[in-house]
Amino acid sequence: MGPQKLVRESIAEQIYAIIKEEILLARRKPGEQLNPRKLAEEFESSVMPVRDALKQLVDEGLVVRKPRVGFFVRSFTPREVREIMEVRKLYELYCLESYFDCIDKDRLRFLLERCLSRDWPAVKNPEFDRLDDDIHDLIVSASGNTFLIESYNNIKDRIFLIRHLGESQARRANEEHVLLIQAILDGDKERAKEILQAHIDRVTCEVSL
Amino acid sequence: MGPQKLVRESIAEQIYAIIKEEILLARRKPGEQLNPRKLAEEFESSVMPVRDALKQLVDEGLVVRKPRVGFFVRSFTPREVREIMEVRKLYELYCLESYFDCIDKDRLRFLLERCLSRDWPAVKNPEFDRLDDDIHDLIVSASGNTFLIESYNNIKDRIFLIRHLGESQARRANEEHVLLIQAILDGDKERAKEILQAHIDRVTCEVSL
Repeated sequence: MGPQKLVRESIAEQIYAIIKEEILLARRKPGEQLNPRKLAEEFESSVMPVRDALKQLVDEGLVVRKPRVGFFVRSFTPREVREIMEVRKLYELYCLESYFDCIDKDRLRFLLERCLSRDWPAVKNPEFDRLDDDIHDLIVSASGNTFLIESYNNIKDRIFLIRHLGESQARRANEEHVLLIQAILDGDKERAKEILQAHIDRVTCEVSL
Repeated sequence: MGPQKLVRESIAEQIYAIIKEEILLARRKPGEQLNPRKLAEEFESSVMPVRDALKQLVDEGLVVRKPRVGFFVRSFTPREVREIMEVRKLYELYCLESYFDCIDKDRLRFLLERCLSRDWPAVKNPEFDRLDDDIHDLIVSASGNTFLIESYNNIKDRIFLIRHLGESQARRANEEHVLLIQAILDGDKERAKEILQAHIDRVTCEVSL
């Protein structure tokens, strides 16, 4: 066994990372109150680093602070959901259009296998979420533009927040992913664009109802 | 005179805002070292809030921290400049294409007047920069998508950082703005898209040389 690693993050940074993950994995739901004092008790820390962590999450748009009321996991109106999904579509369709030939085909075949490897349950699970990310990420990373990829990653936290809203339809999303990947592997750009557009539009309806 | 306003920002927040403005107005140049101790002397503060301010600027990508060397105003390689400008083009061309009819024509006529109101010097100045922003902002705000506008604003700090690189050509940029506005006012979407694309491509060359 190698030397044990030191934890170099501050208490606030560690609390931030834990709460963030809980929000993104939907263990803390949109609208849920985040009480700094209770959280400090849970973490066995003082209140200060919890407040610092919550403030950073406010800056990132995952938590809202209502003056004189407290902190809450951010919730989204149908309009906000549509707005976020429009920006997502902007990035993904642009990359599919402009960098279609740069998409890594070997990786795509590997993802296709993962799509087909099991009978997905109707309800989304962490394994499905990971595969979902990997497919959409692959399209955006084809741009080779690190700034574009970084900007896309910045909006992805919001996408993660909203993707468990509405009625989960993992099986249907998986079918659409399969069709999308096959269109890309066939070199049929126009069909791939149509499928991706319809897929994001359908998911938008699903999560904004 | 009304009651005097209290300053509610912390020392670190105030220092952050001042340094940020100095960087964006190119009073501190790309590559310039930012020494926390010297800055603390300038601000007559302790070193801690200066470090907090610099850390936030690192998070935003305006400052880089080289371990064991110090903090520096971020500089950009030609490749990074092209990457930033590609994302900018993505947003602006999308909004011009999708929300062409939503662009505020009255405001556009007002901006056209400002373009034509004076003989712009060859070198960019703060007045030109403001007009430049207003024109590009108007196109993006036509989307009415607050999340999209917010995402665009997040990349704008980088655009501000690089816009004074290379040989400044305010007069030429102004001519292009005039042609762009006229095409929009004529309702000629295709011409407007061509002009905007060529304008951003030319500026990209200008600042990445």
